[in-house]
Amino acid sequence: MSPKITTELLKQLRQVMKNPRYVQEPVQAYIVPSGDAHQSEYIAPCDCRRAFISGFDGSAGTAIVTEQHAAMWTDGRYFLQAAHQMDSNWTLMKMGLKDTPTQEDWLVSVLPEGSKVGVDPFIIPADQWKRMSKALRSAGHDLVPVKENLIDTIWTDCPQRPCKPLITLDLSYTGVSWRDKIVALRSKMAERKVMWFVVTALDEVAWLFNLRGFDVEYNPVFFAYAVIGMNTIRLFIDGDRMMDPAVREHLQLDSTLEPEFKIQVMPYGSILSELQAVGAGLSPKEKVWLSDKASYALTEAIPKAYRYLTPYTPICIAKAVKNAAETEGMRRAHIKDAVALCELFNWLEKEVPKGTVTEILAADKAEEFRSQQKDFVELSFATISSTGPNGAIIHYKPVPETNRTLSVNEIYLLDSGAQYKDGTTDVTRTMHFGTPSAYEKECFTYVLKGHIAVSAAIFPNGTKGHLLDSFARSALWDCGLDYLHGTGHGVGSFLNVHEGPCGISYKTFADEPLEAGMIVSDEPGYYEDGSFGIRIENVVLVIPAETKYNFKNRGSLTFEPLTLVPIQTKMIDVNLLTEKECSWVNEYHQKCREVVGAELERQGRHEALLWLLRETEPLARVQ
Amino acid sequence: MSPKITTELLKQLRQVMKNPRYVQEPVQAYIVPSGDAHQSEYIAPCDCRRAFISGFDGSAGTAIVTEQHAAMWTDGRYFLQAAHQMDSNWTLMKMGLKDTPTQEDWLVSVLPEGSKVGVDPFIIPADQWKRMSKALRSAGHDLVPVKENLIDTIWTDCPQRPCKPLITLDLSYTGVSWRDKIVALRSKMAERKVMWFVVTALDEVAWLFNLRGFDVEYNPVFFAYAVIGMNTIRLFIDGDRMMDPAVREHLQLDSTLEPEFKIQVMPYGSILSELQAVGAGLSPKEKVWLSDKASYALTEAIPKAYRYLTPYTPICIAKAVKNAAETEGMRRAHIKDAVALCELFNWLEKEVPKGTVTEILAADKAEEFRSQQKDFVELSFATISSTGPNGAIIHYKPVPETNRTLSVNEIYLLDSGAQYKDGTTDVTRTMHFGTPSAYEKECFTYVLKGHIAVSAAIFPNGTKGHLLDSFARSALWDCGLDYLHGTGHGVGSFLNVHEGPCGISYKTFADEPLEAGMIVSDEPGYYEDGSFGIRIENVVLVIPAETKYNFKNRGSLTFEPLTLVPIQTKMIDVNLLTEKECSWVNEYHQKCREVVGAELERQGRHEALLWLLRETEPLARVQ
Repeated sequence: MSPKITTELLKQLRQVMKNPRYVQEPVQAYIVPSGDAHQSEYIAPCDCRRAFISGFDGSAGTAIVTEQHAAMWTDGRYFLQAAHQMDSNWTLMKMGLKDTPTQEDWLVSVLPEGSKVGVDPFIIPADQWKRMSKALRSAGHDLVPVKENLIDTIWTDCPQRPCKPLITLDLSYTGVSWRDKIVALRSKMAERKVMWFVVTALDEVAWLFNLRGFDVEYNPVFFAYAVIGMNTIRLFIDGDRMMDPAVREHLQLDSTLEPEFKIQVMPYGSILSELQAVGAGLSPKEKVWLSDKASYALTEAIPKAYRYLTPYTPICIAKAVKNAAETEGMRRAHIKDAVALCELFNWLEKEVPKGTVTEILAADKAEEFRSQQKDFVELSFATISSTGPNGAIIHYKPVPETNRTLSVNEIYLLDSGAQYKDGTTDVTRTMHFGTPSAYEKECFTYVLKGHIAVSAAIFPNGTKGHLLDSFARSALWDCGLDYLHGTGHGVGSFLNVHEGPCGISYKTFADEPLEAGMIVSDEPGYYEDGSFGIRIENVVLVIPAETKYNFKNRGSLTFEPLTLVPIQTKMIDVNLLTEKECSWVNEYHQKCREVVGAELERQGRHEALLWLLRETEPLARVQ
Repeated sequence: MSPKITTELLKQLRQVMKNPRYVQEPVQAYIVPSGDAHQSEYIAPCDCRRAFISGFDGSAGTAIVTEQHAAMWTDGRYFLQAAHQMDSNWTLMKMGLKDTPTQEDWLVSVLPEGSKVGVDPFIIPADQWKRMSKALRSAGHDLVPVKENLIDTIWTDCPQRPCKPLITLDLSYTGVSWRDKIVALRSKMAERKVMWFVVTALDEVAWLFNLRGFDVEYNPVFFAYAVIGMNTIRLFIDGDRMMDPAVREHLQLDSTLEPEFKIQVMPYGSILSELQAVGAGLSPKEKVWLSDKASYALTEAIPKAYRYLTPYTPICIAKAVKNAAETEGMRRAHIKDAVALCELFNWLEKEVPKGTVTEILAADKAEEFRSQQKDFVELSFATISSTGPNGAIIHYKPVPETNRTLSVNEIYLLDSGAQYKDGTTDVTRTMHFGTPSAYEKECFTYVLKGHIAVSAAIFPNGTKGHLLDSFARSALWDCGLDYLHGTGHGVGSFLNVHEGPCGISYKTFADEPLEAGMIVSDEPGYYEDGSFGIRIENVVLVIPAETKYNFKNRGSLTFEPLTLVPIQTKMIDVNLLTEKECSWVNEYHQKCREVVGAELERQGRHEALLWLLRETEPLARVQ
């Protein structure tokens, strides 16, 4: 992977930063966040402005270009990847390390007095704007909105914004109709005394209307906004997708409906002016509810006194707690996904020793096996198929220049998942096709102990996920090892593979308490730069737990693994496991046998079934 | 304990809330926070306004009185105590429980439209003012400063503000002179480009000048503010304490000093006008540094554009990392404290069966034994001496009406500590003088497992304390038990027994990372309402740890117990301990024997020594 040469691009950007055609006054710095106008994590090619200007195409990062400097902030998952993809024009700012300055502190340290810092107001979330603006103002600088995106002005071959057909989901998948979701939303609005709710996140629009799309790779969403009033529904969406009879039927666009369920369809680009009109027409005490992560541009459309901002929207919170239809769908999806992976690992076990399987081929093969399963739609993220040193690049994606061949001498890490119409999967397994070293087994076993510590944790109702993060690290910490990423993220139901408001992380973001029905990943790891990467990831469902004393009826929770793929026992140093941990592994494998074994049998996949049986032999502890 | 009858007082308060002599406009609600003008946790009698109006005298709580309601917010430590001390005029708001409204939400739900909410601007911290004011404004109400404290207007027999003599600490106790502390502070100010630093917290003033006082019980502090400029030092303090030759000598008030170390002594009451003068005389870019917990009144004295507010001041952070002189002092103090407790427990063991020892007598006896030790100054907090059901009142203090007699049938919990000139102690031990039940032993053992899990934890440099909190709960959680308080707090060095910026709590307050030299408590517990309380507390020092792989040279930390008092083995169900936990207890007891045993020997306390030897017999696990 050679870095992108950005000298010329940076020169052009620095020119438009001073060009009165685009900026009212020259800006001495320009911020390029990684999101789109919906603050999506995964974005369409036309929105990959930060990757365009820097070369770094990981999922998280913020670029800031000044007249003299170009700097990139990203987190531990991407330190190696960013260093590889960026040329020497760029300084990598490693977030989470003690000596790394914040963007604000860095700007203050490099900018000349009284500087203007520009940013696209549609791309920066309102909460970030506020923090950044305050910090800059207190140091004598100004954060200014630049209406025209400056990257777009120099991006001559920028792709078009996608506008693909939609699919509708019926009750058997969603459990709740979009009308009932609107009713529930309006009742939350009434509780908080707000008159309007603005839906800005793409997965929230998709969830609310029980629609899915293909505008963004891996995330089954489509470009749209919605504005929900107590008696009106406005959907802002482009293209002729609303002409599709199935969509019209689903949304009852041609039926005579009670007026409060009549959807007004409006052009995507009219959201700002429509919202400004809403803002201008508000009576005193009529509030408008927005996420505090909505764009600065949309937030500013509502006069300050009328805004009601919360970190998580009622849709985000409702979406996180899966209903019975969604949970059953997720279970089905994970069984199918396990079938595909048993096929894959069985195939790899035979093919790897021949020396013909590359990372890309393995990833393609994983997709092929998944695509054979019912209701398969697409992958849920770019497959991380990595062997040896590539495994230490936490969010690695194999490309021809880096494509290593799997061998019997290196650890192989596969982090992959799919979108099925009934659910979203995300699973990581770390395998060795030869004989792992004692050190590799030791590290793997610590990671496994962490995985089990979270998965088997019992905790009182109302516990926030970040309080579980250290459980995943304790065994590693004892030996002076750690990993620089969170332990888990929320997972959508045939929606985004990363979703709020819950998660398991040492970062104390304002996560909401875990509730029965929420679904998160459990994925501790260990990465030895230049040598190997280890990660063990299951998607787990939050379920009620039974305890001896039940927290004085406060109730307790634990996790049930939805992912049912064998964990390679060859990599385990059994003597480092406690008896309890050993039993956990054996019970987990027993469940894989029963549930996935039955499905392999049903699908007539006998060779994969034999592989599954071999891989799920009970562990025996040496006494 | 019978509740305070507050009907008449509330009537009077509601009258002055409308009296134009005190308020510009009537206020519909009045907030009575628990702090003083320095946001102290422990306060002088003249500042106990919340206790005066409500009867509830725990260390944390906020009262709000409206025309119709009176409500008290406090946390889990005080639910029982507050319920006992308040009459039916008051509603108890249990903070930390899911359904308890915040003060802001509650006010919005009960106030008539367009209400004014009053508060003393000297008592409310600026950050709380901001949050409260914003929430009220967005609901159409106003938070207004009421200059005259309304409680003081109805508190006819309010005691005088204390003004007691000071003591000076030389280098053998502090390790660093006040001049060097000023130099270090100014260098932090220069780093952040601020010209003035306002010291508002009492323990920060005391630490900075190496002085101690007696104005507040248990906390060796005195009423004062300081304003440090790059070339000036102003100390705001009342009374003739600056006439004391020892203090004059210590502060070099009569020497010819370089002007930048010359201390200007000014009246305590002149801080606001002096700060307003500083604020009025600032040139552009001259910033003034304040804690964001400084009072709203002082914060407002500095024009907004000139304020530099941080959650923790450089003094708070420097004070938390103890130097070698302080650490050695803390060690000495804890050994003396252990001697006193060995004497006490030996005495209790003989006296309790006679049925003549009450909670108050036991507490007095503990103080008597402590006061026999060198450099003893006073207690570091009100002794929690509680037996049976009183033990479940987390911050219980025995009074004649509640005073139970210790017996061989109930668990006894003693949480106590002292101020010695060389250090501050805080230790909790839970004992049974007869035969504990299996359930009591089970609960005790889970608490002990949690205590050990924190004390023996190894974690990378830069870890924040809140990430360790769940370690203390894991064993309890597994059985459906929990405790409603944090696991640990910072401890001062002959200063406040609770100090920032570090701690171990499930609350994600902005704690600073743990560093070698910091001192915190490790005190998990379990409380069975109406039956018993269990808590095991050591004060522990953060020290570098040795690990197999040492986090790639990032370094690792662990804790060393400073408290060296036996943990009652009779209460332990050894079969619930792992081998590692068993060894931890045995090694801990071995250290108690060696270190405290030697001191008992030296002090000729033979009976207590024999008690220590009996209580520290190694545990033997049944295989």
